[in-house]
Amino acid sequence: MTPDQLKLLLDSVKEGTVPVEQAVERLRQLPFQDVGCAQVDHHRELRQGMPEVIFGEGKKDEQIITIMGAMAENGSNVLVTRIDADKAQRIQRTFFGALYHANARCLTLEQRPAEAKGRGTILVVSAGTSDLPVAAEALVTARFLGNEAEHIYDVGVAGIHRLLARHEELAAASVLIVVAGMEGALPTVVGGLVDKPVIAVPTSIGYGAAFGGIAALLGMLNSCAAGVTVVNIDNGFGAACAASLINRA
Amino acid sequence: MTPDQLKLLLDSVKEGTVPVEQAVERLRQLPFQDVGCAQVDHHRELRQGMPEVIFGEGKKDEQIITIMGAMAENGSNVLVTRIDADKAQRIQRTFFGALYHANARCLTLEQRPAEAKGRGTILVVSAGTSDLPVAAEALVTARFLGNEAEHIYDVGVAGIHRLLARHEELAAASVLIVVAGMEGALPTVVGGLVDKPVIAVPTSIGYGAAFGGIAALLGMLNSCAAGVTVVNIDNGFGAACAASLINRA
Amino acid sequence: MTPDQLKLLLDSVKEGTVPVEQAVERLRQLPFQDVGCAQVDHHRELRQGMPEVIFGEGKKDEQIITIMGAMAENGSNVLVTRIDADKAQRIQRTFFGALYHANARCLTLEQRPAEAKGRGTILVVSAGTSDLPVAAEALVTARFLGNEAEHIYDVGVAGIHRLLARHEELAAASVLIVVAGMEGALPTVVGGLVDKPVIAVPTSIGYGAAFGGIAALLGMLNSCAAGVTVVNIDNGFGAACAASLINRA
Amino acid sequence: MTPDQLKLLLDSVKEGTVPVEQAVERLRQLPFQDVGCAQVDHHRELRQGMPEVIFGEGKKDEQIITIMGAMAENGSNVLVTRIDADKAQRIQRTFFGALYHANARCLTLEQRPAEAKGRGTILVVSAGTSDLPVAAEALVTARFLGNEAEHIYDVGVAGIHRLLARHEELAAASVLIVVAGMEGALPTVVGGLVDKPVIAVPTSIGYGAAFGGIAALLGMLNSCAAGVTVVNIDNGFGAACAASLINRA
Amino acid sequence: MTPDQLKLLLDSVKEGTVPVEQAVERLRQLPFQDVGCAQVDHHRELRQGMPEVIFGEGKKDEQIITIMGAMAENGSNVLVTRIDADKAQRIQRTFFGALYHANARCLTLEQRPAEAKGRGTILVVSAGTSDLPVAAEALVTARFLGNEAEHIYDVGVAGIHRLLARHEELAAASVLIVVAGMEGALPTVVGGLVDKPVIAVPTSIGYGAAFGGIAALLGMLNSCAAGVTVVNIDNGFGAACAASLINRA
Amino acid sequence: MTPDQLKLLLDSVKEGTVPVEQAVERLRQLPFQDVGCAQVDHHRELRQGMPEVIFGEGKKDEQIITIMGAMAENGSNVLVTRIDADKAQRIQRTFFGALYHANARCLTLEQRPAEAKGRGTILVVSAGTSDLPVAAEALVTARFLGNEAEHIYDVGVAGIHRLLARHEELAAASVLIVVAGMEGALPTVVGGLVDKPVIAVPTSIGYGAAFGGIAALLGMLNSCAAGVTVVNIDNGFGAACAASLINRA
Amino acid sequence: MTPDQLKLLLDSVKEGTVPVEQAVERLRQLPFQDVGCAQVDHHRELRQGMPEVIFGEGKKDEQIITIMGAMAENGSNVLVTRIDADKAQRIQRTFFGALYHANARCLTLEQRPAEAKGRGTILVVSAGTSDLPVAAEALVTARFLGNEAEHIYDVGVAGIHRLLARHEELAAASVLIVVAGMEGALPTVVGGLVDKPVIAVPTSIGYGAAFGGIAALLGMLNSCAAGVTVVNIDNGFGAACAASLINRA
Amino acid sequence: MTPDQLKLLLDSVKEGTVPVEQAVERLRQLPFQDVGCAQVDHHRELRQGMPEVIFGEGKKDEQIITIMGAMAENGSNVLVTRIDADKAQRIQRTFFGALYHANARCLTLEQRPAEAKGRGTILVVSAGTSDLPVAAEALVTARFLGNEAEHIYDVGVAGIHRLLARHEELAAASVLIVVAGMEGALPTVVGGLVDKPVIAVPTSIGYGAAFGGIAALLGMLNSCAAGVTVVNIDNGFGAACAASLINRA
Repeated sequence: MTPDQLKLLLDSVKEGTVPVEQAVERLRQLPFQDVGCAQVDHHRELRQGMPEVIFGEGKKDEQIITIMGAMAENGSNVLVTRIDADKAQRIQRTFFGALYHANARCLTLEQRPAEAKGRGTILVVSAGTSDLPVAAEALVTARFLGNEAEHIYDVGVAGIHRLLARHEELAAASVLIVVAGMEGALPTVVGGLVDKPVIAVPTSIGYGAAFGGIAALLGMLNSCAAGVTVVNIDNGFGAACAASLINRA
Repeated sequence: MTPDQLKLLLDSVKEGTVPVEQAVERLRQLPFQDVGCAQVDHHRELRQGMPEVIFGEGKKDEQIITIMGAMAENGSNVLVTRIDADKAQRIQRTFFGALYHANARCLTLEQRPAEAKGRGTILVVSAGTSDLPVAAEALVTARFLGNEAEHIYDVGVAGIHRLLARHEELAAASVLIVVAGMEGALPTVVGGLVDKPVIAVPTSIGYGAAFGGIAALLGMLNSCAAGVTVVNIDNGFGAACAASLINRA
Repeated sequence: MTPDQLKLLLDSVKEGTVPVEQAVERLRQLPFQDVGCAQVDHHRELRQGMPEVIFGEGKKDEQIITIMGAMAENGSNVLVTRIDADKAQRIQRTFFGALYHANARCLTLEQRPAEAKGRGTILVVSAGTSDLPVAAEALVTARFLGNEAEHIYDVGVAGIHRLLARHEELAAASVLIVVAGMEGALPTVVGGLVDKPVIAVPTSIGYGAAFGGIAALLGMLNSCAAGVTVVNIDNGFGAACAASLINRA
Repeated sequence: MTPDQLKLLLDSVKEGTVPVEQAVERLRQLPFQDVGCAQVDHHRELRQGMPEVIFGEGKKDEQIITIMGAMAENGSNVLVTRIDADKAQRIQRTFFGALYHANARCLTLEQRPAEAKGRGTILVVSAGTSDLPVAAEALVTARFLGNEAEHIYDVGVAGIHRLLARHEELAAASVLIVVAGMEGALPTVVGGLVDKPVIAVPTSIGYGAAFGGIAALLGMLNSCAAGVTVVNIDNGFGAACAASLINRA
Repeated sequence: MTPDQLKLLLDSVKEGTVPVEQAVERLRQLPFQDVGCAQVDHHRELRQGMPEVIFGEGKKDEQIITIMGAMAENGSNVLVTRIDADKAQRIQRTFFGALYHANARCLTLEQRPAEAKGRGTILVVSAGTSDLPVAAEALVTARFLGNEAEHIYDVGVAGIHRLLARHEELAAASVLIVVAGMEGALPTVVGGLVDKPVIAVPTSIGYGAAFGGIAALLGMLNSCAAGVTVVNIDNGFGAACAASLINRA
Repeated sequence: MTPDQLKLLLDSVKEGTVPVEQAVERLRQLPFQDVGCAQVDHHRELRQGMPEVIFGEGKKDEQIITIMGAMAENGSNVLVTRIDADKAQRIQRTFFGALYHANARCLTLEQRPAEAKGRGTILVVSAGTSDLPVAAEALVTARFLGNEAEHIYDVGVAGIHRLLARHEELAAASVLIVVAGMEGALPTVVGGLVDKPVIAVPTSIGYGAAFGGIAALLGMLNSCAAGVTVVNIDNGFGAACAASLINRA
Repeated sequence: MTPDQLKLLLDSVKEGTVPVEQAVERLRQLPFQDVGCAQVDHHRELRQGMPEVIFGEGKKDEQIITIMGAMAENGSNVLVTRIDADKAQRIQRTFFGALYHANARCLTLEQRPAEAKGRGTILVVSAGTSDLPVAAEALVTARFLGNEAEHIYDVGVAGIHRLLARHEELAAASVLIVVAGMEGALPTVVGGLVDKPVIAVPTSIGYGAAFGGIAALLGMLNSCAAGVTVVNIDNGFGAACAASLINRA
Repeated sequence: MTPDQLKLLLDSVKEGTVPVEQAVERLRQLPFQDVGCAQVDHHRELRQGMPEVIFGEGKKDEQIITIMGAMAENGSNVLVTRIDADKAQRIQRTFFGALYHANARCLTLEQRPAEAKGRGTILVVSAGTSDLPVAAEALVTARFLGNEAEHIYDVGVAGIHRLLARHEELAAASVLIVVAGMEGALPTVVGGLVDKPVIAVPTSIGYGAAFGGIAALLGMLNSCAAGVTVVNIDNGFGAACAASLINRA
């Protein structure tokens, strides 16, 4: 509810067209919907500029279907992240138009074309072959949110020439999402080469003292390239949300 | 060295106006300067859009003076962060025009007016009185880098009405830097209210299980508000660099 | 054994109706029962005001059945927590009247109606859909212990209006149990809105730097809302025990 | 602002006695006061039943004096925690009536007698001599908030008879705050003896693998006595706030 | 090889009954045996007073059979720890006389009666039903090493009377092994009641902030009962070895 | 109070020589003494076979003097650990006979000769020069408790021959306390050479990844020499208490 | 591309035999190959002296086959690490000549004999039976890279004589790789016996406070034997790479 | 004592020129010297190829002087590390020829010229100005041990061109020591550029999530450049020892 809407409501109260009791009620009823297991936030798109997204991990089929249904009826496009192939297939039986992105472990239901909002290209850069799923989640999300998005892969810092060879593509992006596991040094090197915002995504790739992504996370938080910001381990989705907010005119 | 410059050099080699040996030399000589304790990177402003900044902590007076001198001679504006009042005062004896920002523990030397580059306002939001120094570092840095910057303070989530009362200011910013210690929940609440990029800065404020900022850092990395990105504990400087890159046209 | 009972025993010794040897024996025999794998504490209900509860995780069918049997024979109501559907079903073959609460992963055997002891309502507030099982464990336990208990769900702080809309229900409770994973900020916001005791329950929901609930736990321990207390990760049962002790007249 | 106040405001708007613009303004102006370094929350006492308290650590003299002044002018009693003797002495020069509690490291300014609110006694139980300051902070806070409060000290679990000898005092309390460092086992033993809410406070006492209170904190979170809740390390203040909320009729 | 044996060897060299080359060889050949995957240490029983024991976890059937065979041929009794029922059953096909202890997950092969060496009774005390397997490993090991050993179970500190009722048995032991998970407070309470060595064994029982036994381990290391020593999490075997060394005349 | 004393008391009650009220009182009055800041446990020597010891760290002069006074009046020998030279000197002004052990940072007051209780020698073995203070604390404590005690120092495992050369002394001890920082490997090597109980004491010596003794602590807990038990970091006192209990006939 | 090659290229440009555009292109085209999921780095052998190696864990069959194919076509020998028997068998259907090393979990395809490069023998020393797979990975890798390599196993420090008996073999090696889990003390003891480089490999063997290899890792980083260096937990491959670089003339 | 010496001794015993008792004695007397607080290991130079080095931190003046004296009398060169300027100055009063290296915090006493043993140059590469002291310790140590050693500084990965410009120097070294704090990415990039052994030294430089060098340490352990090995945080000395062992012919 915007300030204008608030003023309109109060004018109506003053004019007597809206009774006091009803105004009290409306002031506390914001547009979300109780679907039994969740409060679907139809208002988020207005408030935050992107629709609510369903985090699939740990949710049961019925829960996802219920929430998707409420959103679909409301006319929204829907994105489900962290959903495996089996669960996705079962849900596609209810939502025929839903599309499963295997690499990214995402399910999308696009009822209307994503309206292009970005002013430039979001470039996803990833370090090793094993980082591909997280990079894919970022790519799918960025495009779902109405952005141009591209991908450079397997350009780890132990063979720095592979990265330097892509310098022009790096320079052409408006925002960069850099995905890396193990020691997580790639965002620092990229951050030192470009003059654009860099969002670093640590991945849980590695073993031993990688500690499920802690090594990469700490590396990125301590980046000596000023201006690099970081999201949670394996959080390709969150990186794409941030990149999308940045990429808007 | 840009691709154009590279082509020009190779043309010169072809035409014989530049001997091969000299070209080999130039291809490996990039514009940084060895000042004895550091390699001053005069090139960074071109490459990354912001001048090199001196991290003052742990550096001796002479080291700071040497590096500042090399930068000042080159005509750059200079920012020194994490510098206490005593050290700053001693350095001001060499650089008369340098200005000390006590709250932010920063020293600036502005030889030419910072050229305004941002397209909007960077808003720094901080949680408690003890978070003020980190917020101040972000403010000073953001302005040094040519941005409009404002500050809302003491709006912690335990008295949520203080924050909600500032909703319009929040909505008017182009980028937000949200600074909080203890449980670090403020960026999530702010991120849920606006549709702009939010950069979260955990501070080392707190005691016991705050673990010097770890609690706040983890809280911010796990923010349920999609699109919040995070920098290192107490890193107001880094947050402002990121915000500045985002704020440019 | 209460002080009165002790005095009575000593009087009997003095009067010679209880021989010294027998008194020595009784002074060391407190009313618990060895059932082979456990010492069932029939005395707890008198001493602590709530019956012993069986923690089902890691216990074998036979162990649970033996302990339940000893308690049932003694006339107690029985609560088994952390028990999966399969194990519960096998145990229900022995105890026909036992009821399985699937969401809460609890089994209850109520031989007499739970006597209503609370002076108000215990309100369970949970953040995300994935936090529901922990909230359900708290609800089942609170009711088992003789309290009125209600539930508000999916009111995470990234959409703060969903929570504010329930302000009256929050204010009406006598104790609040607030369940949240990820950054665990919900108890702080709730604690800032009400003047009643708030018990925070971190959940293991999240990934990456959530570290199985550590992020939420630390967030809650560092809550800037004074008066919030915390229990172990996923410990809905313990929160309900504490709430029940608080809720008594 | 209560629901009744909201209704009154809207009635006034309807009747025309309050112009719409003014109502909009009041709806966003809640009663806090900007004192330059903080937003003093005069509203907290109404909202949460206890006045705002000043956390002294890391605040400068001027900041404390400014905030105390705003609160004192408003007629509030004032409590400053974590304040050392030197700083307290300097502040007492401005506020003559302020009283310093050396053991507890607290400063209180009581302008009107604390109105007795509790329905019973809050009992603080502490384990070792070194835990006394944290226990004292809890005692001072509990009394400041209008409660009867008593103290049992040096009753660590390695000499369990010292604790058992105080059984009647334990049983007579309405809420217990149990303070312990090292292995932090005392709250579990106390929790097993009484049928009242127990709030556990880990202290940073110990060395080596005590890790500044982590051992005690973990011990308390894993208490096998159901119903024990925990606050942050050394947080005697927070424990007393929780106990005070519980102790009210 | 004992000092006496060394002297004997050197005497033999002097007398010429042992050639120098052979003495050199013997001085470097100590009595262990290469069985392909391991160096079986037949010498350990002489050197350390207990035979080598096979840690079964992670070893393949063939590896265990090979090592057991080499030990059995040498006339030793054999103990295999951390071995599940299936693997044990397969190995019993080769060693008919081997006995599987299901609770303790141990396999023993006793070729000659364990010679009784202890001067008193080793008492194993355990806290909860879930700690039984670790306690059982300690019991089986203690008896295998020639000690009298008894067991008191389910005497957790939240119902302290269950423990106090067994005071005489506690006092009668010559060494105590105290096994507990969760907050691990039992060894401290026991250590405060007896004047005998107490060995504490943390178990991995618990959830959330139990962190797989870390809470119990830290609690025990910080025990305020002087004289408690600690072994690794779940290491019932190691505790029994230490107790056995202590129990010898 | 022993079982015999209990029987005597009950006999007196039966015979009427002790009134019931007095018996009730005595059953709850165990022999400890409230000295204002502590409950001095005069009973410990009977119960645990060693007198209460004062942990000096963090205690004020007055507190130590008060507790020492109560113990001295009772005729006990007194040991204060973790006390620096200045504080000790101030306390010696009150207790002239007290002796300060500078290396061990201990103060002892022996009013009667320590009665020799041990059946053999406690041998303290330490790794590096920096581990000497912890070893000294163990030595002073062991002797204070009535044991013969010796010391072998600077025999770290990186020069294994230094240790092997002392083999006979190792073999002659009845209990060994092995003190080491850094990687903490010494107890394992010693444990593999002897057939006596080995108590490992990690020290906080080291830097970087030594983490204040964590590396040594973990090394010792994971010792592959069965029968090694461990105490807290730098806890020479606790190791000597355990060794003393073991060393008694 | 070597400096010589660069000079040659520039000479060609000068002479006009290579057009400027083509030179620009070549300067940015280094010899790696995009195979769809990876950038195969054919250049590494020249640059680093060893071929690129495929880390098998988490890679799908198709990805491994694609990368192996690109390398095989280029004439390289191929090593795949961390690959289980099933996956290896499926891949052998495509590459008939590939050899699976079960203990080491490695697959090798040798198209030309590994050219012997080392100047001495790499000796792998391992502590327990469970450390064998990591040791085997080191052995296979060392030989694949053209080195002589030998293995001493089951020489843990708890039976130090087993190690001392192999002193000559230790002394004869040119580089030593020492593999150990649990407390990880073996590299320190070995490092104290030889005058050659020692590379320590912690393994994830152990339980409880071994924390998946952290105890061993910390032990090795804190080794008191100067000159020991460390690689990641279970990283036999990396240790062999380092040893191979050291072993070259 | 070498095998040859052992044979000689045994021959002497056989011939009767050495009595058995004396041989027993010599077999246990290895050439180290008890100086009261330490066992000086004169044998180390023979055994390990480098003299014992004194770790100065935490040692008192007298201890250092005693140990230096014993070594100096034996004709050894002496290196003391981690010694501050004041302590060094006091020690120089006893050892006039000793030289203090302020940057490296080392004291050296060279009684005879260090004999040149290395076959190439050890190159120390450091990332930031603050890493200089650790790099200096490595340089001083490497030269003390008889190696050529050079230094490249301030070549952090955020300005990768500074490093690439030094490619020839990197390629010319025989061993590289790479020193970096913060995210510790430099060794990976260097390791990807050269075909020589790289030893990584994490430093404690940084703040917040740098955790005193843990971030850099983890980054280096997880380096994706195969063949990088790691030493403890700030351990420039250890890195130089390892490099020296590698650099020998």
